[in-house]
Amino acid sequence: MAQQERALRTRRAILTAAAEIFDDFGYEAATMSEILRRAGVTKGALYFHFTSKEQLASEVLHENAQVPAVPPQRLKLQEAADRGLLLAYLMVRDPVLRGGVRLALEYVGQDKLDRSVPFQDWAEESLRLLELAKSAGELQPHIDPGELAEVFVGAFAGTQLMSHALSGRADLNERVVALYRVLLAGIAAPGVMAELDVTGDRGARVEKAIRALRPAVARPQPV
Amino acid sequence: MAQQERALRTRRAILTAAAEIFDDFGYEAATMSEILRRAGVTKGALYFHFTSKEQLASEVLHENAQVPAVPPQRLKLQEAADRGLLLAYLMVRDPVLRGGVRLALEYVGQDKLDRSVPFQDWAEESLRLLELAKSAGELQPHIDPGELAEVFVGAFAGTQLMSHALSGRADLNERVVALYRVLLAGIAAPGVMAELDVTGDRGARVEKAIRALRPAVARPQPV
Repeated sequence: MAQQERALRTRRAILTAAAEIFDDFGYEAATMSEILRRAGVTKGALYFHFTSKEQLASEVLHENAQVPAVPPQRLKLQEAADRGLLLAYLMVRDPVLRGGVRLALEYVGQDKLDRSVPFQDWAEESLRLLELAKSAGELQPHIDPGELAEVFVGAFAGTQLMSHALSGRADLNERVVALYRVLLAGIAAPGVMAELDVTGDRGARVEKAIRALRPAVARPQPV
Repeated sequence: MAQQERALRTRRAILTAAAEIFDDFGYEAATMSEILRRAGVTKGALYFHFTSKEQLASEVLHENAQVPAVPPQRLKLQEAADRGLLLAYLMVRDPVLRGGVRLALEYVGQDKLDRSVPFQDWAEESLRLLELAKSAGELQPHIDPGELAEVFVGAFAGTQLMSHALSGRADLNERVVALYRVLLAGIAAPGVMAELDVTGDRGARVEKAIRALRPAVARPQPV
């Protein structure tokens, strides 16, 4: 294995461990020594890649904004739903995403961490899709995409929080599907709702479609 | 002033200060000395009323479950909406409610605090109202009240979290009104939505109606 590849794997292992610790304990209570223990790397390796807990948290938050774009659909409202269903699917499987969402939802304390990254990214993408949906006549006429984009993001955030609290996110997919069915029924123009696919395995199918579209990515394998 | 009344005021001042500190810093980072400083009482007075930070948090969480019942309405869906709009109205004004909601939404750490009190209380009340709405034919036939009650609670939780993060809850009422309009439009039977009042000042009017219905309560005045 080339040295660079090994370094990438180590970096990934540390980032994953840090995200898990942030998700379990929050930013304040997380310690570098606990992250070190979880990652199973040497102190030297950790500080070679990351200088501080703050830098680790910042990287976890920025990774969070890297959720892949969903494949284009005839209905833009389907794309907006796919974005949320994909995120629910990925969160259950990716500790870095989970850690980033927890960090984003923590109240700002005395630290200098910019927690708005995932919120903003998602609100902007939702807004873009909902504006396209409005132009295409997919929304009820009185709906304001700007207001709606924030409703979507806030409602998703609370739903995943409740799922974390009550089931350790085991029922996240189910809860997000229920949420999206109600939200979409409340905004879709007559006839559009019946054409939307908001079913339990939609998130998994979207993820599969994205992988099929992409050339193989040189992402480090699990160690 | 009678001695008992004075004791009640002191107790209230301490609980309010504790709730503010929990809301600002979270349970872990809150300290008894900071609560003491904020309440402006002596250490003796604090420990006369409360033995520990855990007891204070527990009291704040239980107060949270004391949101008054909303006045009966012809449409049960209106009562369900009134419950959320009232909570948004009260949260902006009542630090004890804010502190309780923050505590309820914190991930469970290593402590033994039962954070589920406000969640459960609200989910049960929502379920009761939505089941009545279903019996009365106010919901679209496919809607499952059990699933829906949790959608309402989770979506509200996330919306207030986002409002706290982005505006210090200055826009909470506005965001909750936007959320409820979409949620209700997604579940109401044809014709019912047009009869519902989900406007910006509904929460304030509900609170006024509750005060008018109640005999004067011997609640301690601000010190």
